[in-house]
Amino acid sequence: MKKLLDHINLPEDLRQLPAEDLRQLAQELRQFIIHIVATKEGHLGASLGVVELTIALHYVFNTPEDLLIWDVGHQAYGHKILTGRRDTFETNRQFKGLSGFPKRSESPFDAFGVGHSSTSISAALGMAIASKIKGEDKQHIAVIGDASIASGMAFEGLNHAGVTDANLLVILNDNAIGIDPSVGALKQYLTNVKKGTEKQDNIFEALNFNYSGPIDGHDLPLLIKELKRLKTVKGPKFLHVITTKGKGLRQAELDQIKYHAPGKFDALTGDLPIKSKKKIPPKFQDVFGETIVELAENNKKIVGITPAMPTGSSLKYMMEALPERAFDVGIAEQHAVTLAAGMATQGLIPFCNIYSTFLQRAYDQIIHDVALQNLPVVFCLDRAGLVGEDGATHHGVFDLAYLNCIPNLVIFAPRDAIALRNIMYTVQLGIDFPIAIRYPRGRGHLLNWKKPFESIEIGRAVPLKTGDKIAILSIGTMAKTVEEAIVHHPDEAAISHYDMQFVKPLDETLLHDVFANHKAVITIEEGTLNGGFGSSILTFANSHHYKLPIKTMGIEDAFIEHGTVSQLLALQELDVTAVQKTINDLMLKVNNG
Amino acid sequence: MKKLLDHINLPEDLRQLPAEDLRQLAQELRQFIIHIVATKEGHLGASLGVVELTIALHYVFNTPEDLLIWDVGHQAYGHKILTGRRDTFETNRQFKGLSGFPKRSESPFDAFGVGHSSTSISAALGMAIASKIKGEDKQHIAVIGDASIASGMAFEGLNHAGVTDANLLVILNDNAIGIDPSVGALKQYLTNVKKGTEKQDNIFEALNFNYSGPIDGHDLPLLIKELKRLKTVKGPKFLHVITTKGKGLRQAELDQIKYHAPGKFDALTGDLPIKSKKKIPPKFQDVFGETIVELAENNKKIVGITPAMPTGSSLKYMMEALPERAFDVGIAEQHAVTLAAGMATQGLIPFCNIYSTFLQRAYDQIIHDVALQNLPVVFCLDRAGLVGEDGATHHGVFDLAYLNCIPNLVIFAPRDAIALRNIMYTVQLGIDFPIAIRYPRGRGHLLNWKKPFESIEIGRAVPLKTGDKIAILSIGTMAKTVEEAIVHHPDEAAISHYDMQFVKPLDETLLHDVFANHKAVITIEEGTLNGGFGSSILTFANSHHYKLPIKTMGIEDAFIEHGTVSQLLALQELDVTAVQKTINDLMLKVNNG
Repeated sequence: MKKLLDHINLPEDLRQLPAEDLRQLAQELRQFIIHIVATKEGHLGASLGVVELTIALHYVFNTPEDLLIWDVGHQAYGHKILTGRRDTFETNRQFKGLSGFPKRSESPFDAFGVGHSSTSISAALGMAIASKIKGEDKQHIAVIGDASIASGMAFEGLNHAGVTDANLLVILNDNAIGIDPSVGALKQYLTNVKKGTEKQDNIFEALNFNYSGPIDGHDLPLLIKELKRLKTVKGPKFLHVITTKGKGLRQAELDQIKYHAPGKFDALTGDLPIKSKKKIPPKFQDVFGETIVELAENNKKIVGITPAMPTGSSLKYMMEALPERAFDVGIAEQHAVTLAAGMATQGLIPFCNIYSTFLQRAYDQIIHDVALQNLPVVFCLDRAGLVGEDGATHHGVFDLAYLNCIPNLVIFAPRDAIALRNIMYTVQLGIDFPIAIRYPRGRGHLLNWKKPFESIEIGRAVPLKTGDKIAILSIGTMAKTVEEAIVHHPDEAAISHYDMQFVKPLDETLLHDVFANHKAVITIEEGTLNGGFGSSILTFANSHHYKLPIKTMGIEDAFIEHGTVSQLLALQELDVTAVQKTINDLMLKVNNG
Repeated sequence: MKKLLDHINLPEDLRQLPAEDLRQLAQELRQFIIHIVATKEGHLGASLGVVELTIALHYVFNTPEDLLIWDVGHQAYGHKILTGRRDTFETNRQFKGLSGFPKRSESPFDAFGVGHSSTSISAALGMAIASKIKGEDKQHIAVIGDASIASGMAFEGLNHAGVTDANLLVILNDNAIGIDPSVGALKQYLTNVKKGTEKQDNIFEALNFNYSGPIDGHDLPLLIKELKRLKTVKGPKFLHVITTKGKGLRQAELDQIKYHAPGKFDALTGDLPIKSKKKIPPKFQDVFGETIVELAENNKKIVGITPAMPTGSSLKYMMEALPERAFDVGIAEQHAVTLAAGMATQGLIPFCNIYSTFLQRAYDQIIHDVALQNLPVVFCLDRAGLVGEDGATHHGVFDLAYLNCIPNLVIFAPRDAIALRNIMYTVQLGIDFPIAIRYPRGRGHLLNWKKPFESIEIGRAVPLKTGDKIAILSIGTMAKTVEEAIVHHPDEAAISHYDMQFVKPLDETLLHDVFANHKAVITIEEGTLNGGFGSSILTFANSHHYKLPIKTMGIEDAFIEHGTVSQLLALQELDVTAVQKTINDLMLKVNNG
């Protein structure tokens, strides 16, 4: 009785099962997900919530001919397991293993690669229009959560789809939570729809969708019946499904935020491991979160903004301490940035905390609404650099390049928690320009980081060590890698090391000194070589006719896959070994030249 | 009787007028706008449509204490004239003159700088929240058109505002047209609301706004009464106003697309000047528009997409010829790009035509949905480089830098109409990568451009002229400037000139040749120096240890104001004179070194 899942290699096997077996399959699938994520880690709650929906979709639709897109893709573990990846699923999110998100190159069942939210409706509509042009009769399904559908991009997709006759089915997976609880007027509206207190006709009907629901997303027979019916309905249609995030694991249902991606846990009880009492350096996120509260308590001009990442960014500390000045605006990066700009015009100092990879969503707003007006908005770019297991969709490696070309914008990267605290302190004293502060995911290396605030001079680099042959210019936490690389190096005395701190403006006074007094220069940054910090140094050297050998270290011109951060840093030649090798190569050149 | 407007220097003067005089003022203001735009050019239709609304707003609200934001700002001419800029208005859009858009540095009455659409709700909400935090009792008003409100960003603003108690008034200026007629499901819905056939309660009410309207936006007493009432309503409120674009000039009402920005016209009759029969080189836009039709008639895989710029981009030719394969998706750049990605997964070849400055709105979608999946989407980046009178908000000068760091993406800039045609021909033969083709606003220099198609080798530069001392590497239409600079130059024989064509990938074979056989190199591009083409050449030279002097010419690290394109090119030292000066400087250096 326990072995239905073992025989499902592909959805075509699933479609052979009698409908009455599907409930058991759902149970097995749920247990399979729980057991693997418990030891291998990953996103849990979202996939548990759509076990029945996943089975129903592959049971009713002829995947992969019919095209199924999971928005964001946190919820697609069941989909992966049912589509040929059951036996490799234990490699999920590991280096060279399965991606944590649907990915076209991984499987024909992954119709569209995802990771960032709210793309599914646009992509599915594009496919549906393509099928119509090609005269192909197939189904196109986007499954999107209630947090993701409130993003502007999803609205744009709905707004276009509603005036087409495209064969598009949008399924709203409504569990009232993204990573954090959903927010916004649309969410309130959906709540009223669920409660039956919303008397008016539907907002989705207003956009010309054929709306049905809400229905119970854990009721397999009902889901199958409804999906079968919708297969025969022409044009854009909308199914509203109510699910419970974390369904089937009690603790995951109760604490949906923690069990979004809980790390390791006990598969049977759901218990999380007891945290070690050993004192370890804090996450940069918590340094941000604690510091903004500390500063905002004394400076009433400070406001905090996050687009849907209060927990991830630790802005939640400020939302709890000073709720009237800290805002979760939902998955709405464009709005978040221009909201901040509006606040800044009125003399407030908005700290707009956005993951580096998600700031790509607000690029125009940074240029057009903030930098062009030279407004003092403070961008805190969380998860800059390589993020590890989330992989190619989530690495924050482009920011230095895409921000570098924006006039007026100052760009700073702290080398440690103290520098992050101090730059936050500095900017709230008053600035007349926008600034981006980029820092990585995870922990720094300082235990004793809550030192008294000191202000940082804008545009000033910090000499960490002086030598006379090779100068290493580092940005951000690469400083630590460089320190480790040189501390025991045989040529240690010949090496200088500067924490540049500011990618823009560059400390040109110091750079002239550096270029005049060394025989070679190394730049290192956790960002793309194209257009980043190293490229600015090359421009500086060229403008001033310095002819020293310069070696730029950074991320190559390719999308970087998933793995642990240290695996990826080694792969990108940004670890201690690589720095040492670069030093050795240049030292040879310098000594021979 | 004719001189009310002469006495309105500021809105405080306006507020002294008896209400019965306002109709006459409206007439005067309308005539004033018509007479100036008729000779000085600019945006006409939008401002004519909101004459009454503009007067009513400044009459009822206490500007600039109350904060008024015009979305996009095409419609703000009346606002400018009534707020201290009547006598300088004839400098509108001219070099050193008034900006064509509201601009904070120009007037305290311009509460927020605009230009790109759909920012007003977010900015006004930011201001309203700021007022609340500061304990200030003021009004915050966003005036937004029906095309702009359908953009995702506006939805994000509404969705957030609806769960606040911010004192925000959103006024929908509904004239059923942006620059081209509005599209999308929301537009259909608004039409039904106007006709009274929409039975259900309102979509804006669903988002928690206190909705009123629709009312006639040309009925001054009604507008004033309603605005006065809304001043006393707490929380987010929404006024739906129906206006006629071009109101008061018959021809502008009849041909709203042409009279959006008609160029010079007869102020009395509205007649446009008769076009000269003299054959002149075509606009790049028309080269694009005619070529895509020509290609798509033979290649059924080609589809065309524009976000709300069918006329401006000339995609309208394809929308007329092949309506089932050409799409205006409205002001929805994010959706446009991911829609194209979805289509590309199904084997279509989408030509996604977006103005360079507006592609900033879809930056994440290019990275995450197109380039990461290496999908063959063809981006046609219209109005790249300096756009002239639209100024700082609209220059397309960042694209080379922000695209340069994206893996997989090919970047091409045609030097003339023939190259544009040929690259379009080339990519539709089949590519396995995304490509951005960037070309400027306006006309090229070739009369005889409809030559038989020839395919272009990807990554290959074109030698235009060879010499032995200085090599000039140009991108795009800068080739023409370079040609003019060298043709009569005394050292003409010593100068090489290469049209690099591809910013990415670089033609490295040719570059090795260039660096080996010259004494100095000049790069020139109509884009930011930071992170652009010149910066790639510096990286190439550094990687390969070439030590020649390199001079990079491009746009400085500053926002460039408005003026004619040739004024701005001269200012940025990107004209013939500047190229000659650079040649002379380098030649001196080379001959002396």
